[in-house]
Parts: sequence; structure tokens; C-alpha cells
Amino acid sequence: MDIDKKIETAHALADAARAAVLPFFRSADLVTDNKHSDGSFDPVTEADRAAELAMREVLSRMCPEDGILGEEFDKVAGKSGLTWVLDPIDGTRAFLSGSATWGVLVALSDHSGPIYGLIDQPYIGERFEGGFGRATMTGPLGTRPLRARCDRPLSESILFTTFPEVGSAAEGAGFADLAQQVKLVRYGLDCYAYALVAAGQIDLVVEAGLAPYDVHAPIAVIEAAGGIVTDWQGGPAHQGGRILAAASRQQHTAALKVLSRVA
Amino acid sequence: MDIDKKIETAHALADAARAAVLPFFRSADLVTDNKHSDGSFDPVTEADRAAELAMREVLSRMCPEDGILGEEFDKVAGKSGLTWVLDPIDGTRAFLSGSATWGVLVALSDHSGPIYGLIDQPYIGERFEGGFGRATMTGPLGTRPLRARCDRPLSESILFTTFPEVGSAAEGAGFADLAQQVKLVRYGLDCYAYALVAAGQIDLVVEAGLAPYDVHAPIAVIEAAGGIVTDWQGGPAHQGGRILAAASRQQHTAALKVLSRVA
Repeated sequence: MDIDKKIETAHALADAARAAVLPFFRSADLVTDNKHSDGSFDPVTEADRAAELAMREVLSRMCPEDGILGEEFDKVAGKSGLTWVLDPIDGTRAFLSGSATWGVLVALSDHSGPIYGLIDQPYIGERFEGGFGRATMTGPLGTRPLRARCDRPLSESILFTTFPEVGSAAEGAGFADLAQQVKLVRYGLDCYAYALVAAGQIDLVVEAGLAPYDVHAPIAVIEAAGGIVTDWQGGPAHQGGRILAAASRQQHTAALKVLSRVA
Repeated sequence: MDIDKKIETAHALADAARAAVLPFFRSADLVTDNKHSDGSFDPVTEADRAAELAMREVLSRMCPEDGILGEEFDKVAGKSGLTWVLDPIDGTRAFLSGSATWGVLVALSDHSGPIYGLIDQPYIGERFEGGFGRATMTGPLGTRPLRARCDRPLSESILFTTFPEVGSAAEGAGFADLAQQVKLVRYGLDCYAYALVAAGQIDLVVEAGLAPYDVHAPIAVIEAAGGIVTDWQGGPAHQGGRILAAASRQQHTAALKVLSRVA
């Protein structure tokens, strides 16, 4: 594998998504769809589709041998054993609300899971990168290394999730159990919360019902920064579902003790 | 009143706060205090104090005749009948978490309430300004007019609050009633949610237990953008307490119908 070429491609993907998405952010005439026929609210914007098309065009030029797993369009198998896992806008509800807590997710994965990833926030101009020996963020304050927080007890930890109603009733109850044991619980950041684990700002992110394209990039970035991401049983997380991201082994173990009880 | 001087002063205050606060944001050695002797979590950072001191220094130079009401230090009475209302970091929990949803709040108020205000997000480099005929934001995408969203029915509205547990049990129940009638509820943005009402992105913000310095600047910015801010009975909101901010008269009336029932 030509690692430099893969890294260059990942940044080109994130750049292409930025350019495609930003004209739609906070624009008055945002076009939204409704993904689910049951009427539940899961907006997909023109921006989402435009960004994924722009990224697929980059891949067809730079890495035509690799597969593609994206949120918006069909899977491409590829011939290299490597797959680009793309979520053009993670956090469409945040995007619709004008809150700069959504992100573009780009990961490169093999059969064992993600090996490299980017979390990009186009409006702020922030990019979190992890894998191939890199763990770095660039943003308004320049470039900094990513390093997950040192061990603190659960009682001192900051826990994030996107919605207070986490997954099923049983999953929600498990989350509530954990929430009672930490110092601070916050909501609403979508993928940006994973970036804050990697940046050493927060300790735990817990979610349920995620798709693979929601988690590949966060896994790569957090693990490169020294954190841990698993499912609620301590197993691999890259298939999605129930996610536990922790800044440290101690916090991961403590949180797993609570969450692994959930049926 | 020299309006240009007041506007110039407001921007100088926000600039001073930015410079004082940014070195602390996402710094590893953030020093936190605990405001309440009962051990509840209300962090006050060195950044909070440094920013308010920097702003008070600006006022002593530029507008020594005006009063000061700030979060961190004693009230200054002033002789002009005007008071600068300052919250150096609204959203200290967001600040501690590394989330760029906190803000610096600056308002100029007279006996009737706020007449001009700024909501500033130093990390993103965004400033929302309202009053004296102005309603503008500047940020990564340049300068844009602020205009609250046109009327939509409650069932199509986006509602924000900071924590899912809004105020007392009765207040929380009132919020939950309202939440059931809107399209989307989101959490965790602190003062940034008020900026998004002014920017035409969201429809409603509902909170309880706020202090005057939490609301003066948001009131000025939202009203300049065509929105409405009152308490839960439809009365003036600048004393703090229970806040209802709405993008339009129709949404305000519909939300008030639910919230005004709360004892």
C-alpha cells in the first residue's frame, strides 16, 4: 500500500466534501428529504448527496482500485481489499439546525476494520486525523497533536451522547445507569464528540444504533490518539450498533462494567 | 448617547474577551473551581475571570460613566443610566468539554432592558450583533444579515435547550409538553442556540433558571433579528429566570400556550 497516496487521497476527499457542503450550510433554501417512509425525521440534504458524489469522483480518479462504503449511494466492491468508508454529513439534524457540530467522516478500512480516518468540520475549518502513525488536529488555533486524556475515575469523567433517549428502552436504561456515575453528561454533538475524546477534552462517548459509516473514522482517530472504541461487550465496534468510546483503559473498563449488563 | 462609541466599545469588549479566553480553551492545564459549596458542578475557569477583568479594563477606559453587571465580579453602579451586562463565558461546561458552543455575551442596557448586544464565539471566530438598527453576523463565511426564521407551525419547529432536565420538576414537565409538539428537539448549545434563532436556523429556545447576564445579549440580538424573547408568561425576560425565545409571533404564541400553564 502506498501510504502517502492514501493519506493524500483522504485529505482530498475531505477537501472535496468541504467545498460541496459549505454552500448549503445555513443557506435559507436547504432542500430536505425524509428517508423513512414511516415519517420519522431523518433529513438527508442535497448537501449530503453532493458531498458524497464529489468524494466518489475523487476516488474514481485517485484510488479506483479501492472499494467504497458510503451513506448515500451503493457500495462499490473494489479489488484491493481496502474500502473507503464515507459519511458526507454525520449529524444532519445539527446541520439543519445551523450548529457546527456535524462532520464529514472519511475512513480507510480493511477486513479487520478502520486503519486510518479523518473527522472534518468544514465550517470551523477543523480536521482531526488518526492512523498510519499520525494523530493530529488542525484548526483555528493551528496544528496540535491529538492525545486522549489521562486516566481519571468514572466519577470525574465527562460523558457525551447525541440524544438523551439512547437507543432502545434497555439501552437507554444502561446509559442512564452510566450517566449517574460520571461528573458531567452533555448532549448533541454527533461525531464531534468523538473528536473531543481524541483531543483529550472529554472522557466517554456512548451511543446505540449507529451504522458502520458513522464509526469507522471515529475509531481510527480515537485509537490513534490512545483511546479505545468497542461495542458494549468490549468487542469490535466497526460494524456499528452500540458504541463505547473511552479516553483510557481504566474508564473503558469502568463503563463496560455498567453497559455490558444491557441485554 | 454616542451610539458609535457604544458600538465601538462593545466590539472592543468582545475582542478583549477573545484574547483573554482563547489561550485557555482546550489547554491541558485548565484550572477549574467549584462555585457551589454543596459540591454541584458549576466550573468557573481562570479564563472566565481573565476575560471579565479584561472587559472591565476596557470599560474603565472607554465608558467609565456606565455601570457594569458581570458574572464574576461586583456590580458597578455608574452615572449614565446605562449598564454593560457581561458574561465572559456563557457555557462553562461546554468550554470545559472543548465544545465550541459557549460564547462571550456583551449587552448594553438601560432601565427597560437590553438595547444592544453581542454574542461572540471566539474559537470559530463568529460574532452576532443586534441593536441600534444593526442585525448582523460575521464568521468563517463572511458577513451576513441576521433574520429570524419566517413563521412555521409548532409541528415543524426546531426547539433547543441546554439540558434535558429543564429547571424544576414543574418546569421540566412544561418543557416536555412543548417538546412533544415540535419536529425536533436538540440540546447542549448554551448561548449559541439564541444566536441560531437570530440567524434564522432554529425556531425556539426554552430555558429556566437563567441569570440576567445570561439573557441580556441574546434578547438584544434576537429582537434585532425580528424574533421575540419573553418569560413563560409573555412578560419581560431581562431579569432572567424562565426564558422563551421564538423566531416569530406565531411560534411564540403557540409555545406560550403550553409554557404559561406551568405554576
